Amino acid sequence: MQFNGPDGQEDMPYLLTPGPVTTSRGVKVAMLADWGSRDGEFTSLVKKIRRELLRLAGCNDNYDCVIMQGSGTFAMEAALGSLAPRKRKKTLVLANGAYGERAAKILEKLDRPFERISLSDTTPLQPSHFTHVLDADSSLTHVWLVHCETTSGIVNPLGDLAREVKSRGRLLMVDAMSSFGALDINMPRDGIDVLISSANKCIEGVPGFSFVILKKDLLVACEGNSHSIVMDLFEQWRTMEETGQFRFTPPTHALVAFQQALMELEEEGGPSARLKRYKHNADTLISGLTKLGLVPLLTATEVSPVVQTFMTPRDANFVFSDFAARVHKRGFVIYPGKLTLSSSFRIGTIGQLTGDVMDRVVTAVREVLNEMNVRDMMPRDL
Amino acid sequence: MQFNGPDGQEDMPYLLTPGPVTTSRGVKVAMLADWGSRDGEFTSLVKKIRRELLRLAGCNDNYDCVIMQGSGTFAMEAALGSLAPRKRKKTLVLANGAYGERAAKILEKLDRPFERISLSDTTPLQPSHFTHVLDADSSLTHVWLVHCETTSGIVNPLGDLAREVKSRGRLLMVDAMSSFGALDINMPRDGIDVLISSANKCIEGVPGFSFVILKKDLLVACEGNSHSIVMDLFEQWRTMEETGQFRFTPPTHALVAFQQALMELEEEGGPSARLKRYKHNADTLISGLTKLGLVPLLTATEVSPVVQTFMTPRDANFVFSDFAARVHKRGFVIYPGKLTLSSSFRIGTIGQLTGDVMDRVVTAVREVLNEMNVRDMMPRDL
Repeated sequence: MQFNGPDGQEDMPYLLTPGPVTTSRGVKVAMLADWGSRDGEFTSLVKKIRRELLRLAGCNDNYDCVIMQGSGTFAMEAALGSLAPRKRKKTLVLANGAYGERAAKILEKLDRPFERISLSDTTPLQPSHFTHVLDADSSLTHVWLVHCETTSGIVNPLGDLAREVKSRGRLLMVDAMSSFGALDINMPRDGIDVLISSANKCIEGVPGFSFVILKKDLLVACEGNSHSIVMDLFEQWRTMEETGQFRFTPPTHALVAFQQALMELEEEGGPSARLKRYKHNADTLISGLTKLGLVPLLTATEVSPVVQTFMTPRDANFVFSDFAARVHKRGFVIYPGKLTLSSSFRIGTIGQLTGDVMDRVVTAVREVLNEMNVRDMMPRDL
Repeated sequence: MQFNGPDGQEDMPYLLTPGPVTTSRGVKVAMLADWGSRDGEFTSLVKKIRRELLRLAGCNDNYDCVIMQGSGTFAMEAALGSLAPRKRKKTLVLANGAYGERAAKILEKLDRPFERISLSDTTPLQPSHFTHVLDADSSLTHVWLVHCETTSGIVNPLGDLAREVKSRGRLLMVDAMSSFGALDINMPRDGIDVLISSANKCIEGVPGFSFVILKKDLLVACEGNSHSIVMDLFEQWRTMEETGQFRFTPPTHALVAFQQALMELEEEGGPSARLKRYKHNADTLISGLTKLGLVPLLTATEVSPVVQTFMTPRDANFVFSDFAARVHKRGFVIYPGKLTLSSSFRIGTIGQLTGDVMDRVVTAVREVLNEMNVRDMMPRDL
């Protein structure tokens, strides 16, 4: 099925998901060439990308950036496997959604000691949830938290949380998968030691790799700690430093596309301008669907501009798969709710989307609800 | 730097490397759309790809295909971590190059018991190298070998080797990274239990993922054996079977490009036709460079049509980096020799290359050797 893309050219449906996102035509066109993964032109490009990611994170020379093949979860496992203590010390995982729980699952598989504080998917993480735990157990030397949980779309107050972790001298690892590139993050200012993110979220590249930005002294110290050859952050970094090359074949086209995406982020005015666009997308969507009677899961202060969760209407005529298929026919891909939020559905507001596109989404949803004869929009029980 | 690509359009230099390879314009154009990774259109495409890979490997319903994000080494580690025994039983690694040694390195990191037989990079693997070892140690239940070693370009006699492994009732794992899609492989006929390959070699897709084809009973039996969350073959397979979706974001564009690459492989006449083209490429290159006085590392019976290794001329005017840069200026990327073969250089003959392109490579090499005033082509010592 073909639709008119953001620049008027034929394109696939808009991806209204928390990623992979709809990318610009320029980002995709950048993939129309083959690059030698060990060739000088390519290694220069990779060097530039790493430098630009460090700049975006506000980092000085005390930090470095390691690119990891695979999805964001690959970088999560690489970071946890390389950095989480093997014994005596423990990692505290703060979870309020599927992605926080995933970090705990990885630590469990890797047999690394950890404690977990699990909140409901709709509870924003607060210092009071964990400061007493840190104060009571000095062996909890590492803390892992998620900035934006795309399970619900909730945004955790990173600055407040980081301050409490850092004032207690703990190492802070942040899953900024769906926030980095749009939400305000400055690693030295915020006291973030390790940040994990992905190519295909707010930077609007195509999927294929992820990255870890972290303090160099942590990198140097983690030699030998990884459980894996391919996901060893230290070795990935050392080879890149020594040769400029990836140890193992990188997704060359995705990296070239990413360079273009970084340029386009800069042209747009950087993360603050992008955040403004995403917020406008979110506002347009929420106000439009609220007018139709649909009920958002989260309040305006809890929600991120990344993905919006709406409650499933209790009207018996509403069947999500049918709803999604009809919305799809109009050119928009949306996702069902995740895990505990199964009586909800999600509409992403990141990627190459504008307020105009969101207006069209609202129109599509209105038409589909009418077609399906859905009248009672009050939420079903979760 | 831009050159005319295979279809007359502007393109990057030809990649004369053992992969990533030069892909067709059609494969790259397939990436000009964004696909929702959990959307039905995409999951159907992935299903088709898995089916087609099974067909290419000659598999019946007793086999299945698991796609893994990342490079070929990710699939190697996934296969070894999921399938290699943890105790009592051992894996025998047969190595005659860097990639065989890499499998041993992975097993060592994963703390899985193994034995290794290491031959020189220029010795083709023969049954006599290992049959006595298998006969003497019944705890060697698993055997790992590499079909084509791109370290040297050597091809190991897969049929002969497999027969000896299978007649001894051992489980056979084959790294067919640079052979699958061109060289003759039929898993049931050859008795291969597990095959590992990658998107960006003989199938001529773009880099971003790799895959493991294996017997279903091995998949079912390996639940819980992996050392990793992301590289767990069983969980990757189970989720794909249950939902049609990847557990973690796949490289959507690389997969769509791969579907196109599979179609083009079929249009070309399948692996046998592709092999014929690669052989013609290799013959053209070897005969052309031999006429210039350059000396191939391997004999005609040892060498694969994947990558050709030539000895560094002992003439003091020959400096590889300068040579490669001058060849690059003419539109061709070539690689230095690997590891123990550092006094050699490699020219790949797979990807969207034809005899005509190889003629142009020969001309470029002749011009460059003249420019550099290289006269004495006799090999330096390795």
